[in-house]
Amino acid sequence: MYKPQPGDRLDSLDTPSMIVDLDLMEANIAKLMNQLLPTGVNIRPHLKTTKSPILARKLIEAGARGCCVAKLSEAEVIVEGGIEDLLITCEIIGAPKVARLVELFRHHPQVKTVIDSPQGATAIDAALAQAGIENPIQVLVDLNVGQNRTGVTPGEPALALARHISSLSHLKLIGVQGYEGHLQHLHDRREREEKCRAAMTVLTGTAGLLRQHGFNIETVTTGGTGTAEFCATFPGITEVQPGSFIFMDTDYRNAVGRFFSNSLTILATVISKPGPGRAVIDAGLKSLSTDSGFAEPKDLPGAGYVPNGDEHGTISREDGPELAIGDRVEMIPSHIDPTINLHDFYYAYRKGVIEEIWPVAARGKVQ
Amino acid sequence: MYKPQPGDRLDSLDTPSMIVDLDLMEANIAKLMNQLLPTGVNIRPHLKTTKSPILARKLIEAGARGCCVAKLSEAEVIVEGGIEDLLITCEIIGAPKVARLVELFRHHPQVKTVIDSPQGATAIDAALAQAGIENPIQVLVDLNVGQNRTGVTPGEPALALARHISSLSHLKLIGVQGYEGHLQHLHDRREREEKCRAAMTVLTGTAGLLRQHGFNIETVTTGGTGTAEFCATFPGITEVQPGSFIFMDTDYRNAVGRFFSNSLTILATVISKPGPGRAVIDAGLKSLSTDSGFAEPKDLPGAGYVPNGDEHGTISREDGPELAIGDRVEMIPSHIDPTINLHDFYYAYRKGVIEEIWPVAARGKVQ
Repeated sequence: MYKPQPGDRLDSLDTPSMIVDLDLMEANIAKLMNQLLPTGVNIRPHLKTTKSPILARKLIEAGARGCCVAKLSEAEVIVEGGIEDLLITCEIIGAPKVARLVELFRHHPQVKTVIDSPQGATAIDAALAQAGIENPIQVLVDLNVGQNRTGVTPGEPALALARHISSLSHLKLIGVQGYEGHLQHLHDRREREEKCRAAMTVLTGTAGLLRQHGFNIETVTTGGTGTAEFCATFPGITEVQPGSFIFMDTDYRNAVGRFFSNSLTILATVISKPGPGRAVIDAGLKSLSTDSGFAEPKDLPGAGYVPNGDEHGTISREDGPELAIGDRVEMIPSHIDPTINLHDFYYAYRKGVIEEIWPVAARGKVQ
Repeated sequence: MYKPQPGDRLDSLDTPSMIVDLDLMEANIAKLMNQLLPTGVNIRPHLKTTKSPILARKLIEAGARGCCVAKLSEAEVIVEGGIEDLLITCEIIGAPKVARLVELFRHHPQVKTVIDSPQGATAIDAALAQAGIENPIQVLVDLNVGQNRTGVTPGEPALALARHISSLSHLKLIGVQGYEGHLQHLHDRREREEKCRAAMTVLTGTAGLLRQHGFNIETVTTGGTGTAEFCATFPGITEVQPGSFIFMDTDYRNAVGRFFSNSLTILATVISKPGPGRAVIDAGLKSLSTDSGFAEPKDLPGAGYVPNGDEHGTISREDGPELAIGDRVEMIPSHIDPTINLHDFYYAYRKGVIEEIWPVAARGKVQ
């Protein structure tokens, strides 16, 4: 059975394979830490990107404190990898999910989550009470700072929710989360910074309102790869949640620039040559996500890629040498998170040799 | 640890979950068999849709003979489930993949594949020779019938490739494949039929040319859910490869109509309520593919869905009762194959009770 091993050459990998340039990835981690740690902000990287406890540990060794996950089922996998300080950034709603949260929290009391509705708070509190769990779960009010996705309305509605949470004995309110996801990919750096500062004003304003009313708001958490540098220096922000910086993609590169490098690609093979200037590779919709545009061929100037179904894509190129059947091409994903979620393993290499193989341990964990 | 079981009610499932209405799925299988078996055509369903040996066996029990897979790594999983007669419909290119093919073929000699280049043929032949395998592998010439993806050009180039293949002692040419993938989703039924018949004329014409030159072309294989009914009755077509009919999606429903029903949905939960007429569910880009448009809410007339990132989507509705936090919604995928590829299990139910749970055994097998 085919099973690559550390020490194998990249050439020996079958395709499509997800490969990571370790020098570039390590430089991305170092750049983020060097940029943000001096501000004093807590760095809690979002693992919805990597879905890997091994990568979580690398980030923590570099200076991160705790991690975020999007979903409860991701948290279940990441705690198995030894990471206990986790914030689940999506609301926990529905009896099956609340029951899973209780079981997770019973054995992993550092797991935290967010709440944006009184019924969400009440259901978690009731389930913890019924399970006879004594210590309260730490929760954050999820605030809408302009993304208009989840989150309670700032100001009085947030205050009312905080009051409701604090009336429940199995919940302990520790902070406020406000994710400005709608700003991450704004191309104009000044516009991104200005709108981010406006969102941070809303977020820290509500945190202040809650403190005025006696709530102990320790944590004010926010930010992604496109905004973390602005959030980190904004007074009152205690924590940032960047994730994509570790690998990047074309969408973030086009918006944020090349401070972080594209360190992850999908290695593909030319399997057919339908005509001059065109080559068909073995990577289509099931290897490269398309929600944020199409992936780009690496190191093939002037070449473009269009998927042709689940398992094919066409590289077109007017100039330059022709690709031949059997040639290998690296594709830079357009959106890193859903692309990683298509694959089972990372093959991390240096100088053409695989050094480490990491499972995408929480792949497919959407619950 | 959360693990649903047969006998559990659908209500007990955490979300997002991929659920299958067994009555509708079984009716889809029966409709296809009743439509195509009387024509005498061989039905070889494409498993790139379901990626499941359990579902392959259900199709074979209903009348299918053999199955297709797109990729070698899918074949490795499906043979483990006991299905031996498999056609790999993508070209096998590159030393790592050819080596895997040899190992698979050694133990599963009914595995067949397609070829569209002399170098592809030569590499497989040489590897089989070097491995000391006596019996030849059955191969089909992959023909470009208008999709302009893979496939050798019809006529003389196809004849030259057939001659090359027959000069190699470890390959046995048994047929021609020509997939008209570009026609599957044409909305106008007459246009779809006319263009399909034109493609079938090309395919059977080249099959005839090869026979004239002494090649034993037993198999002429083609067709998908959008064209199988036309292909099956076209003189000279021996085999069809439909896959999506078993579950359908909005893209096929919009093109082909409602002869087959949407039997698979993604069960989701409303987790936030940002305002009147809007509800945020827990299913985003990592639960529902977007390459062929957005998924549709089932049984919510007038409601539309837009994904908001990896794990969220917004259902908007101008009229009708408001959704509430905790409500469950079924989403009909826009493109079934890449959506199934995001999930690990099918929960197949009847009358609200889970009867069977099938792993998506070949999920992520893109190699």
